[in-house]
Amino acid sequence: MLWSRAFIPTLRDDPADAEAVSHKLLVRAGFMRQLMAGVYSLLPLGHRVLRKIEGIVREEMNRTDAQEFRLPCLHPREIWDRSGRWSKLGSEMFQFEDRRGSEVGLGMTHEEIFAHLASELRSYKELPQAWYQFQTKFRDEPRPKSGLLRVREFTMKDSYSMDIDEAGLDRSFETHFEAYRRIFKRLGLETVAVEASSGSMGGSQSIEFMLQTDAGEDWVAACRSCGYAANFEKATSRVPDAEAGAALAAPEKFPTPGVRTIEDLANMEGGAPAASQIKTLVYSVDEKIVLVLLRGDDSLVEQKLADNVEAENFRPASAEEIQAALGARPGSLGAVGVKDFFVIADEGLRGRQGMVTGANEDEFHLRGVEVERDIAVNGWLDLREVKAGEGCALCGEPLEVYKCLEVAHIFKLGTVYSEALGAEVLNANGKKVPVVMGSYGIGLDRNLAAVVEAHNDEAGIIWPVNVAPFEVVISVIKPKDVNCFEAAQRIYEALVEQGIDTVLDDRDERPGVKFKDADLVGIPYRVTVGPKGLADGVVELKERRTGDTRDLETTRAAMSIAEFVLDERR
Amino acid sequence: MLWSRAFIPTLRDDPADAEAVSHKLLVRAGFMRQLMAGVYSLLPLGHRVLRKIEGIVREEMNRTDAQEFRLPCLHPREIWDRSGRWSKLGSEMFQFEDRRGSEVGLGMTHEEIFAHLASELRSYKELPQAWYQFQTKFRDEPRPKSGLLRVREFTMKDSYSMDIDEAGLDRSFETHFEAYRRIFKRLGLETVAVEASSGSMGGSQSIEFMLQTDAGEDWVAACRSCGYAANFEKATSRVPDAEAGAALAAPEKFPTPGVRTIEDLANMEGGAPAASQIKTLVYSVDEKIVLVLLRGDDSLVEQKLADNVEAENFRPASAEEIQAALGARPGSLGAVGVKDFFVIADEGLRGRQGMVTGANEDEFHLRGVEVERDIAVNGWLDLREVKAGEGCALCGEPLEVYKCLEVAHIFKLGTVYSEALGAEVLNANGKKVPVVMGSYGIGLDRNLAAVVEAHNDEAGIIWPVNVAPFEVVISVIKPKDVNCFEAAQRIYEALVEQGIDTVLDDRDERPGVKFKDADLVGIPYRVTVGPKGLADGVVELKERRTGDTRDLETTRAAMSIAEFVLDERR
Repeated sequence: MLWSRAFIPTLRDDPADAEAVSHKLLVRAGFMRQLMAGVYSLLPLGHRVLRKIEGIVREEMNRTDAQEFRLPCLHPREIWDRSGRWSKLGSEMFQFEDRRGSEVGLGMTHEEIFAHLASELRSYKELPQAWYQFQTKFRDEPRPKSGLLRVREFTMKDSYSMDIDEAGLDRSFETHFEAYRRIFKRLGLETVAVEASSGSMGGSQSIEFMLQTDAGEDWVAACRSCGYAANFEKATSRVPDAEAGAALAAPEKFPTPGVRTIEDLANMEGGAPAASQIKTLVYSVDEKIVLVLLRGDDSLVEQKLADNVEAENFRPASAEEIQAALGARPGSLGAVGVKDFFVIADEGLRGRQGMVTGANEDEFHLRGVEVERDIAVNGWLDLREVKAGEGCALCGEPLEVYKCLEVAHIFKLGTVYSEALGAEVLNANGKKVPVVMGSYGIGLDRNLAAVVEAHNDEAGIIWPVNVAPFEVVISVIKPKDVNCFEAAQRIYEALVEQGIDTVLDDRDERPGVKFKDADLVGIPYRVTVGPKGLADGVVELKERRTGDTRDLETTRAAMSIAEFVLDERR
Repeated sequence: MLWSRAFIPTLRDDPADAEAVSHKLLVRAGFMRQLMAGVYSLLPLGHRVLRKIEGIVREEMNRTDAQEFRLPCLHPREIWDRSGRWSKLGSEMFQFEDRRGSEVGLGMTHEEIFAHLASELRSYKELPQAWYQFQTKFRDEPRPKSGLLRVREFTMKDSYSMDIDEAGLDRSFETHFEAYRRIFKRLGLETVAVEASSGSMGGSQSIEFMLQTDAGEDWVAACRSCGYAANFEKATSRVPDAEAGAALAAPEKFPTPGVRTIEDLANMEGGAPAASQIKTLVYSVDEKIVLVLLRGDDSLVEQKLADNVEAENFRPASAEEIQAALGARPGSLGAVGVKDFFVIADEGLRGRQGMVTGANEDEFHLRGVEVERDIAVNGWLDLREVKAGEGCALCGEPLEVYKCLEVAHIFKLGTVYSEALGAEVLNANGKKVPVVMGSYGIGLDRNLAAVVEAHNDEAGIIWPVNVAPFEVVISVIKPKDVNCFEAAQRIYEALVEQGIDTVLDDRDERPGVKFKDADLVGIPYRVTVGPKGLADGVVELKERRTGDTRDLETTRAAMSIAEFVLDERR
């Protein structure tokens, strides 16, 4: 490819609204353009990288003997109704009517459709099966942002395993786990596998592959000592002790004028430290009021709550609902004496006494509360957010906490979808049983951006050879000098001949412009062909990552460069 | 791949509602399943073929130096409004609102989006450019049918050329034309290139690639003598002469009781042959009444009319509208004396006299009509449908007429889209001019089905090697016989080693079942490995297309088979 003929619209400035590094660089270096919120066009450079990522993922899937399918984007409502997800996903899924008035949705994922196809399996002898596809997924994200990191349309490799039993699922899950590890290694991404919430997907267990980066939106708690790692949505720790407040025979009401928050009460003369307060949150779960209690110094992880209450509709209660239920405004709420509503308490409150909580009377609180004595707790759950330095639940060593980007998510689904969609086979005893499913997803566009987040510097992107849009750029210093151009062209042709992805920068531009573009685009190797070097029989090779340069004999340059590149490909 | 591990759900019977051969065979042989009307899941076999077609198309596109993109499926209304197609396409396009109430459509084609991107081009020096992608397209077909032949979701390779002038467009168009010819040759499709209507795409010229098959929905008129070929939507011919009726000084009214049709009047005592009648059709064009006249023995090609009237809204007028406009019912309509409405006449009526037409009075007609004397024709157009045997408009030799399937369509668009979307560059004189565009589309799924239409017999599909899901199947007669299985496996491994797509049919089934499945699926070469042959040191090779069999020495079998296959690949 000649650079002069290629469409590589590099820009001088970052896009106005971009914050994530990958967003800035991918737009500025001409890899993509936004079409609408959360929807991007991949230009030739972006597409080249996507194709290489796709190739790596396909190779690793095929290595596991998975079979590739191609399922539709348009799904009939009926199939999603069978799993109950049509209503559950609601506005996150693009749903509309076709010209005949039938309800249609755009696929966010394909558990239902694959399980539907799996209903053609007849016998355990046909199992295990592993099916996958590369397909466009659509999610009507409420807040698309950060370029390719949070989008409304993207290409995903999703796969689905079908086994006769849980032991089979464990093996299929492990097979996928290993394949994903190989994929990330080849993409140049150092990921950590963490326990995660399965969310609306359902099933018994799920693992996310996480890349540590501030561009991520997830928090992970990890233990260097024993290797424990979990998404905040799932992470637990040893709850740090806190001094107990004064015990009383019964709760005692006291005025707290102007107190609205945990902090207000901690600062009030005669108040209580946050750890001795009970935080009372009110939720509406399928239109029923539920009280959620935590220690005053803890934060609720809403997903933990969502994972533990089976609900179609789940939201914080409104101020009006709270007033109607408890007779007080937020700031003075509590669960002491509450009988009509379901009360869920975080495990951090077990055994606590001498606590302070709202009195359900505006500007009054109760002190001397003993949680298990004074509050009718209907359910104890782990709901609190882990904090850095808390003891690992497994080994007690202090936990690290950092921001991550989810680059893949794999699920043990069990039989939720196979039962709903009728994917049953005869087992060895001739009995019909639902197949046991797993589901495994990796978003290609997000991984493309993740590679940029992991590999860049001030000058631009630094692609690993495996996924570089071009592996080598040949910059001709004086393209109008016939000697120069022909020498460059000979090297170019020799590289192409050997299957090296090469672009020849033949543009009539100053060398500085060419070098800057090459660095910005992030091509791993740059060969500079200039009249001075040629006179000495050499061209210059520069490695993008290290900045190291060396002279190569012109006649042997192509061979040496090809060796470097092939050596780095995996 | 072992057949026993593969998901190849062959069926005993054709699907109930299928008529097209490709629809029947692709379902029965386990290549695809319907998910909803006009929407199909491709199973592993179907996907394998699609990938090979994609590979061929990509190779031929890259040979022309076109650059691959990847554009979104979700499009904002604004961009489609700029070309006016949001309203024009209406219910054919899936259009809906996202969660924020913005109007979004699913891409049917990408002229608007590519032209929008092309607005980043600056100078004629960057031209020509050729941009393409493989992407899912959505069309809400009113009548999806025939399996993959008429669907609502499909994968398309669409490309777009951008040139500085018409001469450049001609070159780009020719380049694409040749690339498409190479593609069809490699797919094993004998296509004919025909003149076609550009329909809602606009532009000055378009060519369809047609495959002659009764499964098609288009009619083509072609001349063996001079090579002229055109879609009925565009085809012309020398209008056959017809005897003139009796001339009169002025039209004369006569009663025609019970006459409703051309045929009724032809059969009536004192009536007139169809060729001496005027057929009067009434259309509503943007809510204005238009009369369309043809010779009684001719049929209107509605697309020809649509191509010639610029209208957002175009439909046959209702009975009420006709009655209100002309004061009579269909069967007695005519244009003699009509002044208030636009009258369009087919060229076949030029110079005709002694004609009979309705009197705009129920059950009365006029005779002795001389078209140009008695009717105020506002526009003369070619509107009639060509008939087999009529003289070629170019050379006069008789035209053939046959049914075809459109497998690709290429358009000279001109500047319609570049003007609407602001794709302008500076020309050599430093003046801003819109780029001159072409657009080129080939549907992969439809071509997959077209190959089946062109290559099948009673036993099933006969894939050309280039696009076969597997090139070779090895059928083991006694898979439980260790010798047999190991011999088969050795051949299998040797073939895979040489890059031949091979499936080893190791199923514990009768040979008849395996052979039948292999024929149905349509694998070009079948190797039969059985104990009897092995004892003689041979295996049997059978060619699917010819049915020819030959014995190959077991030890050299793999090498010979690989040679056959590689020889047939193009």
